[in-house]
Amino acid sequence: MTDAPLRFGLIGTGRIGQVHAANIATSPDTVLSWVADPMVDGAHAVAERFGGRVTDAADELFAAGDVDAVLIASPTPTHVDLIAQAVDRGIPVLCEKPIDLDIARVEALRPKVAASGVPVALGFNRRFDPAFAEVQARVAAGEIGALEQLTIISRDPAAPPAAYIGVSGGIFRDMTIHDFDMARFFLPDIVEVTAVGTTTFDDGAREHGDFDTAVVTLRAASGAVVTVINSRHSAVGYDQRLEAFGARGSLQVANRSTSLVSLSTAERVDARAPFEDFFLQRYADAYAAELDAFVALVRGGASTSPTFEDGRAALVLADAAQRSATEHVSVAVHTD
Amino acid sequence: MTDAPLRFGLIGTGRIGQVHAANIATSPDTVLSWVADPMVDGAHAVAERFGGRVTDAADELFAAGDVDAVLIASPTPTHVDLIAQAVDRGIPVLCEKPIDLDIARVEALRPKVAASGVPVALGFNRRFDPAFAEVQARVAAGEIGALEQLTIISRDPAAPPAAYIGVSGGIFRDMTIHDFDMARFFLPDIVEVTAVGTTTFDDGAREHGDFDTAVVTLRAASGAVVTVINSRHSAVGYDQRLEAFGARGSLQVANRSTSLVSLSTAERVDARAPFEDFFLQRYADAYAAELDAFVALVRGGASTSPTFEDGRAALVLADAAQRSATEHVSVAVHTD
Amino acid sequence: MTDAPLRFGLIGTGRIGQVHAANIATSPDTVLSWVADPMVDGAHAVAERFGGRVTDAADELFAAGDVDAVLIASPTPTHVDLIAQAVDRGIPVLCEKPIDLDIARVEALRPKVAASGVPVALGFNRRFDPAFAEVQARVAAGEIGALEQLTIISRDPAAPPAAYIGVSGGIFRDMTIHDFDMARFFLPDIVEVTAVGTTTFDDGAREHGDFDTAVVTLRAASGAVVTVINSRHSAVGYDQRLEAFGARGSLQVANRSTSLVSLSTAERVDARAPFEDFFLQRYADAYAAELDAFVALVRGGASTSPTFEDGRAALVLADAAQRSATEHVSVAVHTD
Amino acid sequence: MTDAPLRFGLIGTGRIGQVHAANIATSPDTVLSWVADPMVDGAHAVAERFGGRVTDAADELFAAGDVDAVLIASPTPTHVDLIAQAVDRGIPVLCEKPIDLDIARVEALRPKVAASGVPVALGFNRRFDPAFAEVQARVAAGEIGALEQLTIISRDPAAPPAAYIGVSGGIFRDMTIHDFDMARFFLPDIVEVTAVGTTTFDDGAREHGDFDTAVVTLRAASGAVVTVINSRHSAVGYDQRLEAFGARGSLQVANRSTSLVSLSTAERVDARAPFEDFFLQRYADAYAAELDAFVALVRGGASTSPTFEDGRAALVLADAAQRSATEHVSVAVHTD
Repeated sequence: MTDAPLRFGLIGTGRIGQVHAANIATSPDTVLSWVADPMVDGAHAVAERFGGRVTDAADELFAAGDVDAVLIASPTPTHVDLIAQAVDRGIPVLCEKPIDLDIARVEALRPKVAASGVPVALGFNRRFDPAFAEVQARVAAGEIGALEQLTIISRDPAAPPAAYIGVSGGIFRDMTIHDFDMARFFLPDIVEVTAVGTTTFDDGAREHGDFDTAVVTLRAASGAVVTVINSRHSAVGYDQRLEAFGARGSLQVANRSTSLVSLSTAERVDARAPFEDFFLQRYADAYAAELDAFVALVRGGASTSPTFEDGRAALVLADAAQRSATEHVSVAVHTD
Repeated sequence: MTDAPLRFGLIGTGRIGQVHAANIATSPDTVLSWVADPMVDGAHAVAERFGGRVTDAADELFAAGDVDAVLIASPTPTHVDLIAQAVDRGIPVLCEKPIDLDIARVEALRPKVAASGVPVALGFNRRFDPAFAEVQARVAAGEIGALEQLTIISRDPAAPPAAYIGVSGGIFRDMTIHDFDMARFFLPDIVEVTAVGTTTFDDGAREHGDFDTAVVTLRAASGAVVTVINSRHSAVGYDQRLEAFGARGSLQVANRSTSLVSLSTAERVDARAPFEDFFLQRYADAYAAELDAFVALVRGGASTSPTFEDGRAALVLADAAQRSATEHVSVAVHTD
Repeated sequence: MTDAPLRFGLIGTGRIGQVHAANIATSPDTVLSWVADPMVDGAHAVAERFGGRVTDAADELFAAGDVDAVLIASPTPTHVDLIAQAVDRGIPVLCEKPIDLDIARVEALRPKVAASGVPVALGFNRRFDPAFAEVQARVAAGEIGALEQLTIISRDPAAPPAAYIGVSGGIFRDMTIHDFDMARFFLPDIVEVTAVGTTTFDDGAREHGDFDTAVVTLRAASGAVVTVINSRHSAVGYDQRLEAFGARGSLQVANRSTSLVSLSTAERVDARAPFEDFFLQRYADAYAAELDAFVALVRGGASTSPTFEDGRAALVLADAAQRSATEHVSVAVHTD
Repeated sequence: MTDAPLRFGLIGTGRIGQVHAANIATSPDTVLSWVADPMVDGAHAVAERFGGRVTDAADELFAAGDVDAVLIASPTPTHVDLIAQAVDRGIPVLCEKPIDLDIARVEALRPKVAASGVPVALGFNRRFDPAFAEVQARVAAGEIGALEQLTIISRDPAAPPAAYIGVSGGIFRDMTIHDFDMARFFLPDIVEVTAVGTTTFDDGAREHGDFDTAVVTLRAASGAVVTVINSRHSAVGYDQRLEAFGARGSLQVANRSTSLVSLSTAERVDARAPFEDFFLQRYADAYAAELDAFVALVRGGASTSPTFEDGRAALVLADAAQRSATEHVSVAVHTD
């Protein structure tokens, strides 16, 4: 592998595909070589702004011969087949989460990925957020002593449409899966999952038997306990906080305020527009850093990219949470 | 009942008994009439500073005829008998938490208390903290819409001695019981308890089969979910935070900093000595307000004093948490 | 001088006299021996709560023979004569600020005080505020390197009545005088005063030719610059902040919030009731510490009590500020 | 004027010229047409990244005929002549501050600019910072009542080289000039300037008779008072704060922290890396918004661009401050 920019094939040009396209075009280490989407107008729009040849068929992209890596940002049900194709051709993959909603399909793919040696990275972008990454590194460096409790508050601004809920796989596989990976970023060896879910405000969740509110407690092999607090809505905006509590102190990640202005009056002190809207704004830096880490992975350097195994482990935890919340029992798990 | 100051008999002159004695002596509505403690030196020391006659036998206090109310701050195993005596004599009671560690003894006492009509209040002081009380009132007034999630972080500065752990009834009955009552302050009707406990740092807890770290999830009849996060130690000091999350916003209680000073340098911005040491400092105001509410209760006015029933309900939740954490199942409960 | 509690004669029983009376009664090192006020009802009310004999004539108090120290909290025009009497009798004095509004009277008294060797302390209470005292000590210890700028924001909650303004000596002698002393707490050797005053909202100030808004810049011999920003009103409450800016960093004192509660909604994050009402609340700790320091001074120990000389120096700066603001020139000063 | 992108000629390709080039290239409303710099290598580097033809002579750029607007980012002494050339050709100008260090040259150019009707905007970028702009708008909307005090703290991270100080025109014309414009953004009609300057840490300032520390007090016609607190260095990073204090409350702009992470330990609560490094980071958004406002000005729409007159007024205030600090008197000014 030379130092020439990595030629990317991008599959999928929806909201998140466009973010990746912009980052690929902006980074000096990468270039957009192909853009594939069955809805070819979207592919053309992306290629016009960020370069690359266009196709409505991922097969053409794989066959072209000038693709050094693929970025899979297409709908979840297509991920397994696309990863398999890439691995067969020896092309490294950065795939949006989740691998699939069905653990059986993930398990079926697992040996091929493992045997191939082809780098397959999962798009758990939050690991690359500067704040979360800083806290993880400082915990790992022992700054707060042994990690005893990790508390993750993760609330989306608004519930998705009912139709989306119906195909989402449920809150644990769709939304909490990011938090499962964040938990494993700090504590890879989770041994028990206990989940409580309720539905109090979202008709879409109620219609599809899903939860709109959830609390998940994870026990790590070390005895440390992770608490994940989720809601499908948040009046105050995208709510993404974390506290790592250790024997010698705590490290905390606050929400990012959108304004430096505060008002003081006889009644109160306030600040407007408290939080970033949603993940595209909040994690803009993270998506760029995620791409850099993937390039390092492909080039054989040290990399913090979450892998196919991490993607599988998060799904194992999501499945366990689903069972725990439904059957009202704690569920023992093994993620390796 | 005239407007003359309420004459209190104080039973127990340990750390918390002394706090109550000072508040009784300071309030214009109350006066310290008797001080009882088998360790009579302690009783004498309290009476010298705050007034009252001294005895080493609570019986003498009950028989004296000049006691309008008793404040029970003696060891937990004495509470049930002392409450029974007071109720038999028609003397209102303010009893430190918990009523007892054994729910069977509480159930046995329950009909007598209910039949008597004598006011029996439980010393869940945190309900009277200005910050928690304000949040509860604003939630009740609908300021954040329907309450969906309540998150309580409650960590003591340091684990108690191993000997204390051995007679404490375990973390849920000894420490979390305050948080169970706080949960019921917002959401009285809890229907399910799910608890996870681990032991990672405290040899005393390990020795006695107790937990030093716990996360409890409570489901309310409304579908709201409460999360309690406990630790027996906290390097940063007494950690007492709460977030009420509703459909239209959140109300939060922060820790109280002990300094107004901050330092800004090239490396960081910091503030020294972040939190109050422990409950006597943090809840000093609350103990005084608790006494005021009890006086109002005795005088037949509107009162927010938690009752014997609240004390029993908290113990029901603690027992359920103990079972949940041990058997790894969620436990359905009825607190009425 | 034995270790027996210091017997205080209190002269003046207005708002601030009552604060001192309570502190004298509460401290184990002091006792209230006499209370003098021409409005003798006030003196009786204080003595009933805090002890001491009562008189309407300060002369009787001085003559009684059982007064170890006097605390002068009577109207400003009486201070000079009362200090003189105390010094003549060899009785140490803690006198409320200012010594007098007329520097000529202060200069006339100065030699007597200096020659007597009797401790005369001035009631610049803010030096004893834990936050300001901490910052001063940390600056003195070199924590932020050489002190280059000191910024003091000091705003009262509401303008005093017009009648008070008329006898106040003007904003610089009445209000800024506290800030002049605070400036000298950090930088005793001030060499130049530059002041700007305007009147924009207070009719009382306008009527009496006074300012309701002022900015004073002080140059210290070291080259450090102090900025004092004053207003006679503040919608948000008593506004008392300070920033010490040095070569290696800054130390800041924030206002003290009266609530730990904050609200987050879609529009804003806010906290109610931001600041303490006024000086009796904000500086309650400081008044007690001021008394302790005075006791130490009287007993010959190390003491941080501001002295008669400090009281004179603050008035010199106030006079210079008045001239600067009126004549639109900077004024050179010598405060020793 | 059609809706075609505005074709810019950029003169000067130093640090700030490169920022403007990037913004011109990124905005859909603008395009980089010409890049001029006598150091032509810099011009070539800019053109390679952002487009445009290159010249070492501004004359060529003016003569080319395909320039709709010029952005002057060349050294200060060239500004007057370049503005004059642009105005003669009827080409709108966005010129970096200051117009010139010599008010006589500015006054000489003033009638030509006024008579021409050609838009000439000054690059006071801070007006376009979202936080400062929000506060100015909310004050103008009456949210805090009448504006009584404006406090601007403005400190650079580190003093410039001594050689730069020598040609800078002094701290008031070089650094405070931004704060003078900010003052006029809120209170255009300043009538008196009082300045105090000292030199305590910077040998370059000492060598050239300049100040490294300054406090300037401005009196507005309304009676409102502005305080500007400057330092040529700041250990904690670029320090840019503002408080607008009005009859009904205050609006404050805080520094922007570079991290969402905080650490809590037994000793302190801290946050790393408190502030943005310097103006290119802190005001990145402002430079883009400044360009947008200028495009609106050129197209005849409503615009908040500061004008040639604003540039002149800031210099008048700087000259008055220089005189005030040197002669130790307040200086009456007229800025219109």
